[in-house]
Formats: sequence, structure tokens, C-alpha cells
Amino acid sequence: MNTFGTLFRLTTFGESHGAAIGGVVDGCPAGIELDLDFIQAELDRRRPGQSRLTTARNEGDRVEILSGVFEGKSTGTPIGFIVRNEQHHSTDYVDLRDVFRPSHADYTYYMKYGLRDHRGGGRSSARETISRVVGGAIAKLCLRQLGIDVKAWTQQVGDIACERDWTQLDLSLIEQNAVRCPDPAVAQRMEELILQVKGEGDTIGGIIAGVITGCPVGLGEPVFGKLHAQLGAAMLSINAVKGFEYGDGFAMAEKRGSEVNDKPLSNSPREGKDSLSSGNNDDQGSVAFTSQDRVGSVTLTNHSGGIQGGISNGQPIPFRVAFKPVATLLRPQETIDIHGNAVTINPRGRHDPCVLPRAVPIVEAMAAMVVLDAWLHNKTTYL
Amino acid sequence: MNTFGTLFRLTTFGESHGAAIGGVVDGCPAGIELDLDFIQAELDRRRPGQSRLTTARNEGDRVEILSGVFEGKSTGTPIGFIVRNEQHHSTDYVDLRDVFRPSHADYTYYMKYGLRDHRGGGRSSARETISRVVGGAIAKLCLRQLGIDVKAWTQQVGDIACERDWTQLDLSLIEQNAVRCPDPAVAQRMEELILQVKGEGDTIGGIIAGVITGCPVGLGEPVFGKLHAQLGAAMLSINAVKGFEYGDGFAMAEKRGSEVNDKPLSNSPREGKDSLSSGNNDDQGSVAFTSQDRVGSVTLTNHSGGIQGGISNGQPIPFRVAFKPVATLLRPQETIDIHGNAVTINPRGRHDPCVLPRAVPIVEAMAAMVVLDAWLHNKTTYL
Amino acid sequence: MNTFGTLFRLTTFGESHGAAIGGVVDGCPAGIELDLDFIQAELDRRRPGQSRLTTARNEGDRVEILSGVFEGKSTGTPIGFIVRNEQHHSTDYVDLRDVFRPSHADYTYYMKYGLRDHRGGGRSSARETISRVVGGAIAKLCLRQLGIDVKAWTQQVGDIACERDWTQLDLSLIEQNAVRCPDPAVAQRMEELILQVKGEGDTIGGIIAGVITGCPVGLGEPVFGKLHAQLGAAMLSINAVKGFEYGDGFAMAEKRGSEVNDKPLSNSPREGKDSLSSGNNDDQGSVAFTSQDRVGSVTLTNHSGGIQGGISNGQPIPFRVAFKPVATLLRPQETIDIHGNAVTINPRGRHDPCVLPRAVPIVEAMAAMVVLDAWLHNKTTYL
Amino acid sequence: MNTFGTLFRLTTFGESHGAAIGGVVDGCPAGIELDLDFIQAELDRRRPGQSRLTTARNEGDRVEILSGVFEGKSTGTPIGFIVRNEQHHSTDYVDLRDVFRPSHADYTYYMKYGLRDHRGGGRSSARETISRVVGGAIAKLCLRQLGIDVKAWTQQVGDIACERDWTQLDLSLIEQNAVRCPDPAVAQRMEELILQVKGEGDTIGGIIAGVITGCPVGLGEPVFGKLHAQLGAAMLSINAVKGFEYGDGFAMAEKRGSEVNDKPLSNSPREGKDSLSSGNNDDQGSVAFTSQDRVGSVTLTNHSGGIQGGISNGQPIPFRVAFKPVATLLRPQETIDIHGNAVTINPRGRHDPCVLPRAVPIVEAMAAMVVLDAWLHNKTTYL
Repeated sequence: MNTFGTLFRLTTFGESHGAAIGGVVDGCPAGIELDLDFIQAELDRRRPGQSRLTTARNEGDRVEILSGVFEGKSTGTPIGFIVRNEQHHSTDYVDLRDVFRPSHADYTYYMKYGLRDHRGGGRSSARETISRVVGGAIAKLCLRQLGIDVKAWTQQVGDIACERDWTQLDLSLIEQNAVRCPDPAVAQRMEELILQVKGEGDTIGGIIAGVITGCPVGLGEPVFGKLHAQLGAAMLSINAVKGFEYGDGFAMAEKRGSEVNDKPLSNSPREGKDSLSSGNNDDQGSVAFTSQDRVGSVTLTNHSGGIQGGISNGQPIPFRVAFKPVATLLRPQETIDIHGNAVTINPRGRHDPCVLPRAVPIVEAMAAMVVLDAWLHNKTTYL
Repeated sequence: MNTFGTLFRLTTFGESHGAAIGGVVDGCPAGIELDLDFIQAELDRRRPGQSRLTTARNEGDRVEILSGVFEGKSTGTPIGFIVRNEQHHSTDYVDLRDVFRPSHADYTYYMKYGLRDHRGGGRSSARETISRVVGGAIAKLCLRQLGIDVKAWTQQVGDIACERDWTQLDLSLIEQNAVRCPDPAVAQRMEELILQVKGEGDTIGGIIAGVITGCPVGLGEPVFGKLHAQLGAAMLSINAVKGFEYGDGFAMAEKRGSEVNDKPLSNSPREGKDSLSSGNNDDQGSVAFTSQDRVGSVTLTNHSGGIQGGISNGQPIPFRVAFKPVATLLRPQETIDIHGNAVTINPRGRHDPCVLPRAVPIVEAMAAMVVLDAWLHNKTTYL
Repeated sequence: MNTFGTLFRLTTFGESHGAAIGGVVDGCPAGIELDLDFIQAELDRRRPGQSRLTTARNEGDRVEILSGVFEGKSTGTPIGFIVRNEQHHSTDYVDLRDVFRPSHADYTYYMKYGLRDHRGGGRSSARETISRVVGGAIAKLCLRQLGIDVKAWTQQVGDIACERDWTQLDLSLIEQNAVRCPDPAVAQRMEELILQVKGEGDTIGGIIAGVITGCPVGLGEPVFGKLHAQLGAAMLSINAVKGFEYGDGFAMAEKRGSEVNDKPLSNSPREGKDSLSSGNNDDQGSVAFTSQDRVGSVTLTNHSGGIQGGISNGQPIPFRVAFKPVATLLRPQETIDIHGNAVTINPRGRHDPCVLPRAVPIVEAMAAMVVLDAWLHNKTTYL
Repeated sequence: MNTFGTLFRLTTFGESHGAAIGGVVDGCPAGIELDLDFIQAELDRRRPGQSRLTTARNEGDRVEILSGVFEGKSTGTPIGFIVRNEQHHSTDYVDLRDVFRPSHADYTYYMKYGLRDHRGGGRSSARETISRVVGGAIAKLCLRQLGIDVKAWTQQVGDIACERDWTQLDLSLIEQNAVRCPDPAVAQRMEELILQVKGEGDTIGGIIAGVITGCPVGLGEPVFGKLHAQLGAAMLSINAVKGFEYGDGFAMAEKRGSEVNDKPLSNSPREGKDSLSSGNNDDQGSVAFTSQDRVGSVTLTNHSGGIQGGISNGQPIPFRVAFKPVATLLRPQETIDIHGNAVTINPRGRHDPCVLPRAVPIVEAMAAMVVLDAWLHNKTTYL
């Protein structure tokens, strides 16, 4: 259960304060240029210490690729990698050895396994997501060749929300501010809120929005492997995530079919048909719908979110992910120890007041792996 | 990808207008009393024609168990079952052979596979969920022995919502009305809305809420197999689902850590310790926390939703599932055919104006299978 | 564990004396002509009562396809099927209810599951292989399009062996005799031996040989998914199989490298290059070795058996499978009952004195599914 | 496909001349004392340079555990590990960059992936088995607690065979000689043969025998997960293996049922019943057969090899694995290059004339992982 995916598979390991975080990417297609600078740059996006909004820990988090690459290209064999844990402030956690912190996984790990590495959350630490970002970066390098793009950004922090959806935003601005919101004015207010919360020793939740564009028709496997079910599972597996929706999501609960059905547009004359990158339908002579629809010109509206019956329809796939506030507060909290006694904790250490900015590359990474896996799976639909 | 689960596995098959819907339950523990009346009763809860709120099709939907049961008990071998499709009104669909209905899976199936069974949606029909209900009923029979219960109900239809959460509701009332809402007054208004929408040839969305109670501590597998990630994937795989949240869900995005951290309660003296049904921790002599906490008296509040770090903490697990309105309207809609030409469709046939009432047992079935699978997996945590 | 394969998957169910044997083929490529007559003909090859060599039971064993086929073609959705168990001579087994027959699975099923369906071996009966033959027949229909062929035959019965290997045999003769040995003279002696053994109320073991031809280069996934490891697991999962070897197999243990290394042949000039059906390497401009080698002209000898490093090399893949004699004897045997008491059994009923003739289509079926699965997997090696 | 197992899972990575070989053990039960000295000692058994029989390379092959262990015990989280490749004699392989060595995987990797790491066989090198030995050592530490033991030894080298089976051998002698044969006289002759073959620049094949003892009744999952099918797949996945048999294996093909059926022994009076370690059948009141049979006193003979219907019966499980001679000869061989031209190679470097001695721990490792995985799976047979 530390493996994600079916054909493009990421297996991860590593605790917060152990020797290293790492993983194995198995099933990466052969012959992909593995741009190590890009992989490291993705890691840098989730690294602590990037800005005053995040924890002051400044771990190098340098990735070392151990296998699966020859002369710069993927060989089709498994890509092993590690990121050493450089700073061990384990002493920060001595006091917490026998304590169950509120809304942390201390109690559940202890009860499930009978013992736990209490230092920094151990396996339940968000440092685990380092491996996801590496796997996702490799997936992105594959998707780039396919013309598929995945973008995520901070859409809401506390009650400060960016009301505009992705079609109204300039996503190239995401990396222009520390909070990773493509609306500069909203980003400014989000930053202010995070700093205020930080000053109070508190934390704050939020929502990350994402969109997958350039996705061809046909990805996703009915019935249980629906594309959005895989995407949802991916997002819900990220630390602190409490909800997932795609397309119009929860808002559709209030709508009528006549309001939200997406009307297909009739076919304008077209010149030539370039083929689906997955190669499907190439020889389906009588099929009027094939390739050029992959960029998603099919329906008047996109309430459905680019997926019908669990299969991508060529439209963009927008989705949203809800994060709870970080459980570690820099203020006293009452809790209990393993003997059931009431204790008060007052954590030291450096912690994020809001995970959203650093979670953006993690959301992208998980989405990228889901889409690539689905793309590979879809190659097996035909002989 | 027509298989769900890892140890308790359901594999399904069947199209709306084929010979039969069916499946195979593999990994059902041995020696379980397989109460066929209960299984059929669960199927009856999702059957069309139950009330004036649902489609008038009244298919018997009788399940036939073909294997895996001997003298009333599960033998540990796979349980094969089928439900014959009794009424074939395929002629209802002749006009739709070459048409892509709006917001249906017609286009995506056609594009993905190059051909499709156009009758009644084929594999993308909600009749597929028959197999889920059978699998879920078998899972429930197992969970009953473990003291774990799964309940779901219609919480919202359009803008009519039951504002009370499960702790304030009498869940024994769920089956007392056609809409399956345990608040009789709200149920009445929901029914009126559904009938109004039906009269207009339209459809309406909604939200189903659910809660898992009696769940022991320790279910769920980090990192990618978090209990709520599995639960979310299960729900998102149900037809028409657009979103999933658990605990305080999306509402937590606006909250501060100091507001939503769940404070653990110190231990009151206890008499005896009955063991966790999974057998974990039996010999963990020094562990103050063991078994009696399985019913969930651990924290003052339950914003987290009974899961920390992906592992159940013994508290109830509440969740919510958003459904879009049914795509089939009994009024003219503009769409296109497989040649890209604009056409107008005006579906005949019998269709649900709102899927929520019949989706309640499906939500329960999926949740039951997730929990049982996690319970079995957790048995392997120790030698 | 009642599911076989990763992309082309067969899930099976059914006991000897239950209502039906059946299964689900998931992942069958779309658009395949599903020739039902061929599927039934394959089933007829394993049916009891074909000749005086086999059991006198003459069950119709008619397969009913329940889903996944539309207008004669596979739709890409799961193909459910059942074969009803027509003759229930359960009374033959009343005496055996509390008895553990020697070298049967009675004891192990009882001990593992705590109860068992004692009639006819229940799930451990060779009737289970009906589902394999149906799955294999569907796989063969796919392989036929790819030019890949799988053949098996009875190579040895007791001490009567066909010494010639497949290159010296006319495999079109396999179906010309009841024992399914392509050497008519040897077949005659095998039949005589089987009848003699049958007359003595005894049973006899043997060896089935097989060969996969037309297999392109590149099938099989290192490290644990080596093509021959998958093939071996498939064969060893068949009832009564005790050993598997491929290429020169056990005989290689006595050989030196200088004797059994297969010398690659240098390239003769070639006209055109037709592409690998899997599409691999099409654009590997500088690769001198591509497509025409798929039929296997690469090496002077084939001691390796068409596989190097777990990946097919385009040569034929010969293998051998050892079967123990059937455990059910038509003569008294001493054994014990579930209370540990000594008892003597004297089975009635109709049983095969030698399973080899009817196991030939089962061996082919399993090999066909392995090769198709590997072929589909190999499609994902490249973007 | 670089992952082995279902509940106890090993995922591996690494090439012969890359940075490191490594892997991830996922699903290791919590609370196991992870004796690092034992793990290293197992690795030392497969290390090159142990004796004059093996390659002169003397790589340290020191394993570094990166995660999953806390204060000496497994935590239930994934155990990541690496072994650095210390000596890079890549220049030994420059000449081989464009050459396909006979009976190596050079051609098949190149054809499958379009490129390959030619140095030392890359991923197809037997150095990959380092990860298996580490995974197997961890499995052995678990099995030790369960009283299950796995032993393997060199039974045959070329035509020098140890004719005595395991019941007639003193397995404590295995490690007493360089060839790892528990019959000292035979070992002496094997060593002489290997040295002779080495002197001739040639290589030689052989057979490794193994036996699993202390295995409880009930391991193995019908139908496709039969214990011996899993064991066979495990063995066939090891480099150079060409065949697998268990129990009387291929010899059973010549036998009659009356000769090889294993007669169950009637029950002698017993004192108390200690329970199966898997906990099964504890409450099966009427079951006369339960626990004490786990050591295997059930049948008069053991032709079946301790498994019936794919499920262990408590008897020892003997098996045999055939290895081909190493393909690398220290003498000139004719072959071809990637352009199809004939070339002659004359490998330098240090290579084993016979892999058997170093393959013994690998065979044990694979068997240990199979048995532990089956043991964990069997825990889920009951609620």
C-alpha cells in the first residue's frame, strides 16, 4: 500500500527523521529524456524554507537517482531514488515520545503498529511527499511529450478565495508569488492572512484547484477505475486532504439536469485528422469523431469536468482539493499521553502555518501520475 | 479495472440490456452465514419501481448465487452471482444508436472502444451497480459479526437539505420514506421537489451522507491506501458522483487549527479490556490504549471524521457524496450524432428524476466493502 | 487469487457440483470478433466423455456469454460467462462427506476453511478449468490476429514418451487421436497403456509439451515478471501439475555453457521491414534489428527456449509440464475421516484414468492468456 | 513488474554498474526484531569473491537500511535499503557496447526498450538478486518467529549429483563447503568439476534443491495462487533458471496413482491441541484435525510434496530448481553486433564458472518471501 499506480507505479519509503526518503518508479516508458534539473526544480517547489510563509527548515532535499537512467534517458527499468534527511532535530521531539498530539496520526500509528517512530511524525510526516514530487516530475516529463499539462494553484486560504476559475486566470502567474495563487491581488491577501495566523501560533486550511489540459479522449477505465475516481484517490491520499470534487462538484447537487447537461457542438468542417496520441481509433473508418477533438472543443459547456462515465472526453479536467489546517500549533494544547494521562504540549520546531503553497506541486505530481497511468492503460484497449 | 478491493474483491460484468448483470466476490472469509434474504432485500432497496419517485421499470432483479456457498455458509471460495435482465425494451433505444446523448458516456465509450452497446447506456448504465449492492450485502453480513455498521441517507435534494448531522438524527427512520431521508419533514419536501421536477421532464442532483460506526482503531494503510482515500475512490466510482468529503470536509478549508483540532480525552478508569476484533495489540502489555476505545470515546470533538493519517481512530466516520442530476431528460435536447451532425433527441422510456433514493444502498455497499477490505488487510499488520 | 493476469484478466468461480462454473474476462481488447463456435469447440476439447479414454460423464458444458459482446465483437467491457453444471450425481459423494481422500485436497480445504463442499472435490475439482478454457479461447482469438500460435500435446504417458521434439512433429495431427499425441504410433501405445491402467482401476501420469510460435521480440517484464516465470506459474496452477521447464530445461543442468549458448546468426540482406505488431522500435532509426526477426531466425540453436532475461527473443518458446496421476482410483484405498479414524474408500463414479488428453486444451489456454497479457503489457513500454 | 508478492512485497531497482542496487520491503509485519547482522550475513553468502569457485570481484555489498526500523524493530512502514555498487569496471564492457552476447539478455533488452545499459548486463545482471536476498532475509526473520524454516543447497553440478534427498542429509553441513552441498564427498567432486570447467574458460549448470519445514496447514490460495505456483514463479524469476518441480516432480509422470498416492495416517491419541499459528480453526469445535499436524505427521509418504490442491498440508515442501550454465565464457565466441555483423568476443573480467553456490541464498530468499506472503494471506481466511 506504499505503491501507487498500476502501470506507471511509484513505491515510496522513508520517515521524517530516518536516514532518507526515497522511492522506485517502475513502468516509466523507455527513452524519455530524464531532465534532472527539472526533477530537482519540482522538488524545490515543495522544499521548506522557500519563503517566510513556510517553515524555516532549509533542507537541501537533493534527489539522487540510483538506477533506470542511461546516458540521460530512461531505460524502461525501475528508477530508484533517494533524498537524504539532512537535518535531524530529533531532540525537538523527545518530549513527544509518549504523547499523542491532537489531530495527528500519533495515536492511530501507535495503536495499529504497537510502536512508532515518534520523531517528526515518522512515516505520517509530510516529508513523505518528497517521493511523490519526484515520481510526479518523471510523469510530467512523459506527459510533456504527449502535450498534456497539469497545473495547480492555491485557490482559497481560510476565507480568502479566488473566485475566478481557471479559464479566467493566467496560470503562468502561479509561481510569481509565495502563496502560489495566480491572482496577484488575492495572493497578497492570502499571504497577509497566513502571516497573521502564523503570528498567532495558529494554522489555517484552504483549497487547491487544478486543471488537466491537453488530455486526449479515452483515458480512464470503467467501472472502478474511472479517471476521476483515480484522481480523487490520489488527492485524498495527500496529507491533510479532506475533500475532492471535479467539474462543478458539490455545486451540482443543487442543479437540474437542464441546467448542467453539456451540449455537444456539431462538427465544423475540418481539414485533416491527426491521430490520437494513444493510437486508438486510427482505423475506425466510419468514425467521424477522432482526433482533433482531443483538445476539447466538443461541448458548449464543461460542467461535467472533462470526464463522462469515468472516461476523459477531451475537455479540460478541473478539480478542487480541500486541506484542513495543519494540526501542529505553536501554542499550548491539551492532549494525552500513551498512559491516558492528560498533558499539555507546546511544540517547538519550525512548522508551516499553512500547507497550501507547498502542497501545490504535490497535487500536480499526483495528478500527473494518474493521467500518465491512465494513458498507458488506454494503450491496451486495442490490439 | 472491473475489480474492486484487494483482499475482499468484487469483479463485475454486465450491460443494461445484455443477458445478465453479475459478479464474483473473491476473498470472502469462510464460515459466514450468507443470508440470501438479506442480500435480496438489499437489492430490492435499489430496484427501480419501488415508489412513484423512481422509474416505473419493475424488474424483478432476483439474484442467483452460483457458487461459494455450502449449506448456507461461505466456503472461502469465490461467490459467483447473476441477476438476469428481464425486460428488454431495446427498441426504446433504436433512435439513439448513432446519437451521443448530452452528458452521457456515449461519446467517450465510442471514442475509447471504437464501438459500443448503445442500448440503455450499456456498461455505463447504473444497472451495473446491482453487482455492487450484492457485493456490499455480503460485506455487510461480515461486518455485522464485527459490530461495524454502515448507514447512508439522502441528505440533500436540490436546495432542500437536512441540516442536522447524523448525531442529531434517528437513522432508523431512513427506510420510512421513499426518499430515504431520516428527517420526515425534510423528506416530505424532498419528495415534493422530486415530483415537481419529474413533472417538468427534468432531473435534480443531491447529496448522500453516510456514517460508519463501530469501526475499530487501525483500519487503513498508509501512504496511498489511506482509509478515506479508499472510501473516496469507492464513492467516486459510483455513477453520477462529482465529489466526496469526510469529517468536516470542505468546510475545514476556512478553519484554523485551533478551531478544528480534536482534543483527546484523558482516560477514565476502566474495568476490563476486551480485545480488538482484529486481534492487534493483544500482547502489547505496556499499551494503555487498546480495545475499549474501538467505539470511539477518544476525542472531545470529531472534526477529523474518525481517521488520522489515513488510519481509523475508533470514532465514527461520517462522509458526504455529491451526485449530479441524471443526464436523461424527458424533454427535447439538442445534441449530435456520430457523424457530427446536430440532432434533437426526445427520450422515451422510464427514467429516474433523481437517483438519490436508489443510490443510498449503493453508497452503503461501497463503504461496507471498503471497511471490510481494510479490516482484513489490518489482520496482516502483525505476525 | 481467483484472478489470473494483469491486463487481460480472468476471474473464475464455481464448484464441481454447484449451480455453475463461470468467470469474467476483463481487459479483452475491443473490436475482437468473438467466434462463439470456436470458444465452444475449445470447451468440447476438454469435455468429459469425448472418448473411451476419459470419464463417461457427458456433460454438455455449453458456455453462455452474458456480457461484453455486441453484434459479435468484444466491446472492451468485461465478458461474463457461465457453464451450468448439468449432471448432479452428488449422491456419489455422500459416503465421502467426512472422509479425506488420499492425495486429494479434501484435508487441506477442510483445514484452511473449516468447512468444504465435499461433492466432487468442490472448488478443487478439475471442472474449475472450464473457465480457463473459455478465457484461453478468447485470448487465442486475439492472438490469431497477431499471428501468434499456441499448441500443446501429450508427449508422455507413464513410460511411453514421444522422443521427437516439436520441430520433428506434424502438430496438425494432435487432434487426430484421442490421446492428443501428434505421433500416431506413440499415440497408439499411449492409448493402450491408458486402457490397461483403467482396467486395473488405476491411474497414470504424464507430460504435456507445448510451443508458442510467432511470438514477437520483447514480451515479458523483468525482473519478477519474466515471461517464463509467468508461464510457469500459469502451468503450475493447473490441477495435478508437479513441474515445469522451458527450453532445454532440467537437461541444461548437466551442460556446459559452450554446449548450450545459442549463437546469433549474422544478418542476411533483407528486403523490407514490416513492423513489429506491438509497434515498438518503429522509429529506432539506427536499430538494425527490428521486425523481421519476430519469426525467430536469430540464433543457430534454441537451447534457451525463445526467452533471454525473461524477454521473448522471437524464437519459438517450447515448454513441458509434468502431471501426476489422478488421485481417484477405482479400487479400495485406506485413508482417514475427519475424526482421525482409519477408513477404506472405494469410489464409484466416473473418473479419468489419465488427465493428459483433456489437459491439452487447458495448457494451451493458460499459455495463450500469458502471452496475450505480456503482449498488452509490452505496448506500454513506449509512449 | 519489479514488485514481488501481494502482502509482503519486495520492489527492487538497480543495474550492475549504476550507483546502487536497492529495494523496498512493504508489508513487513510490525514489531519484528530486524537483526541487521543476520541480513548482512545472508548478503555475504551471495557475495562474489567468497571462494576460489566464484568470481574474484570482492565488492563489499554492505546493505544500508534507510527506513522502516525504529530502535531495532520493524515499524510496519516500508523498509527502504540500498547497496552501493563499489567497483565500476565499466571499461571491461566498452567493447561490448554494440554487441549482443550469445544467450545473454543484450538483444532482448535492446529490442524491447530501444536502448540499454550495456555495462555488466545492466538490469539483467545477477547483481539484481542482492535485493532479493535482503528481502528474503527480512522474511526469514519473520518466519523464524513462526517456526518455519527454509533451506536450500547445491544438489547437482553438471553430472555430479547428490542422490540422497533431504531426509537423508544433514542440512547443517550446507555452509561447510564452498559449493554448499551438505554431502561432503559429493561437494568435493563438485568443486573439482567447477575448477576444471573454470580452467577451460567454460561454465557449468546444475540443480539447487530446497525444503520448507515447519509450514502450517492452510498456506496457498486456490485457484491461481496455489502455493507451488507462487513458489515456481519465484524460482523461475531467478536469473538462469530453466525449470522447477516440487514433491516427486517430473518423476511422477511415469508413476501410477496407486504408487504415489500419499496415505493419511490415522490419528494417534493426543494430549493437548496448541493452535495453528495463523489462528485459523480455533473455534472449529468439531474439527478433529487442527494444530499438532502442522509439523507434518499426516501421511505415510510425501510424494505430493507437502501441498494438496495448492494448499500446504503440514508436511515438508521439497522442491528443485534447474540452472543453465552461465552464458559468459572466458573464451572466444562468435556472435553479432547491433548492425547484424558477425563479430568475435573474448570477455575479460571476473565471472562465475558456476552460479549454483551463490544462488543457494537467493533460492532460500525467494522461498522465504513466498511462504511469508502466503502465511499473511491465510490470516485473512477468517474474520
